[in-house]
Amino acid sequence: MGGDHAPGVEIEAAVQAAKRWGIAIALVGDEQRIREELQKHDVAGLDLRVRHASQVVGMHDSASDAVRKKKDSSIRVAFNLVKDGEAHAVVSAGNSGATMAAGMFVLKRVRGIERPAIATIMPNLKDQTLVLDVGGNVDCKSFHLAQFAAMGEVYARHILGKNNPRVGLLSNGEEEKKGTELTRETHSLLKQSHFNYVGYVEGRDIFNGSVDVVVCDGFVGNVVLKVSEGVADALTTMLKREFEGRFLAKLGFLLAKPAFRAFKKKIDYAEYGGAPLLGIEGVGMICHGGSSPQAIMNAIRMARDYSAMDVNRKLSAYLEKIGDPPSDEAATTGVSGGIAQG
Amino acid sequence: MGGDHAPGVEIEAAVQAAKRWGIAIALVGDEQRIREELQKHDVAGLDLRVRHASQVVGMHDSASDAVRKKKDSSIRVAFNLVKDGEAHAVVSAGNSGATMAAGMFVLKRVRGIERPAIATIMPNLKDQTLVLDVGGNVDCKSFHLAQFAAMGEVYARHILGKNNPRVGLLSNGEEEKKGTELTRETHSLLKQSHFNYVGYVEGRDIFNGSVDVVVCDGFVGNVVLKVSEGVADALTTMLKREFEGRFLAKLGFLLAKPAFRAFKKKIDYAEYGGAPLLGIEGVGMICHGGSSPQAIMNAIRMARDYSAMDVNRKLSAYLEKIGDPPSDEAATTGVSGGIAQG
Repeated sequence: MGGDHAPGVEIEAAVQAAKRWGIAIALVGDEQRIREELQKHDVAGLDLRVRHASQVVGMHDSASDAVRKKKDSSIRVAFNLVKDGEAHAVVSAGNSGATMAAGMFVLKRVRGIERPAIATIMPNLKDQTLVLDVGGNVDCKSFHLAQFAAMGEVYARHILGKNNPRVGLLSNGEEEKKGTELTRETHSLLKQSHFNYVGYVEGRDIFNGSVDVVVCDGFVGNVVLKVSEGVADALTTMLKREFEGRFLAKLGFLLAKPAFRAFKKKIDYAEYGGAPLLGIEGVGMICHGGSSPQAIMNAIRMARDYSAMDVNRKLSAYLEKIGDPPSDEAATTGVSGGIAQG
Repeated sequence: MGGDHAPGVEIEAAVQAAKRWGIAIALVGDEQRIREELQKHDVAGLDLRVRHASQVVGMHDSASDAVRKKKDSSIRVAFNLVKDGEAHAVVSAGNSGATMAAGMFVLKRVRGIERPAIATIMPNLKDQTLVLDVGGNVDCKSFHLAQFAAMGEVYARHILGKNNPRVGLLSNGEEEKKGTELTRETHSLLKQSHFNYVGYVEGRDIFNGSVDVVVCDGFVGNVVLKVSEGVADALTTMLKREFEGRFLAKLGFLLAKPAFRAFKKKIDYAEYGGAPLLGIEGVGMICHGGSSPQAIMNAIRMARDYSAMDVNRKLSAYLEKIGDPPSDEAATTGVSGGIAQG
């Protein structure tokens, strides 16, 4: 209920995901509005349930208030479904801080994890780079960053299908003497880990395919995310403007349109769907507030995969023997069940 | 001598700047190599002098070693020319940390400035945004960031010609409760300043034209710079790839080429030339190690303007009464003289 265009786009996404992949979905929120929206779709044969929640956490509610004050909010009720075993995962396009807080509060953290993190998947010249934290963990300690690295490693390995993912620490230069006190401490910790730690990486490495997982604190991660969006938007607008004043260029643009479309698809976050919430005892997928139905639909599929791969159990095992690489046994738990759409 | 393609591109840039704008330039470095390079150009009537320096600070030398150990390096000798009144400004495409360190060591800081900063000029949808620090001031205190804001304000006002520039503090959200301990302290300081402080801004605001000066520490500033470069490079490569496989798209690309060129010009750092080194008692302009002759030529012109506008005297006056906006009297000092090209 907390997304910018809720619950319309969420319901459209859920209907599509149920149709395409046969996923069972609980729609959590204002029952009457949800049922009205569902009227617009052909839902025959789909496993869609509605769970009423009387409150909504808005984009401007604080995360902690949302958890403490709004006990019947859609996001709380959705995570309760996971806690009660009625769903395997939560997908939300609402307030991301509140989603993280509610997930932590209701489901608790994976044992050994001090701070859950949100990871984002960014396109690079070869495939994708996972960047974390982008979930607002500011003023981190080196221990937190090392745990983000572990969570990112496990996610990249098991969900993104990267074999022996290269993990880098974001810094202002590649030399060891660069960085802040925090990055230098984290660098020492990660050098002792047994995963494929490649050392300091720079901002441009996120996009050139030289690293699979990039670790930073949530302040810097937010800057990375927002600067990337800002540059991509500005470049697109500038390019459009350049084309507008020129007749031949306009013709050229029309001829080139399929290329532009393919390109846009590649950089469109909708393709990747959502940002996984890592480190809670359950699965959460966070979508942009203004997500398209397609983005949310893809997030639902990713949540299904995340849950089916039993990543959290692998992470727990990994944390117990941190320093050792995770075992590569592809122990999936078969098929996942319902996904709570909050 | 320290640039990636030194001294060829530097000398070509100097010759062009001398020709186009009549600027007097001292070329500092290995005399024999410089004279060999100069043979390739028609330098009749140009005020180009050569100053020998026997050492070079490499890209991998540490800034402090460079200053302490290499006393006859081209960058040290160049700043000495400014100290001795033989030049007004230094332009360098060498090691930026060493340039900053040498500038501080030889010329000293502007009275009241604790840490000089490097600012970079980034294109936005309307004109340009000045971002500082990108010069490696990591682990900053709020007082440092407030001084960066003051330096950026004065530079944007007097060199970029912005009337009452809007100054923002880079954070992970616009709300006051966002940010780190450092940004919240800085926010309090800047709210008390009398310049046009617009509060927290996000990474995307650098590119949408909503702010003129964006303040951050040197770690975050480096991330901003490298992420922007990385996204722009990746988008260009992806777009090219999309065009390659398609015949009509290729034709379209040819027709649209002038638009692409105009666009590239807009985002090309060469247009902006160099990054000003702010807060030292003199003028320094730092160029990318791989700069084109055009970029360095533009940096020489910017250094000339920077020196002519007597920005440092304005900054001193500003710092004495920090909190008051700087006086707007456009007291230029007439014409600047030679520029040392290190």
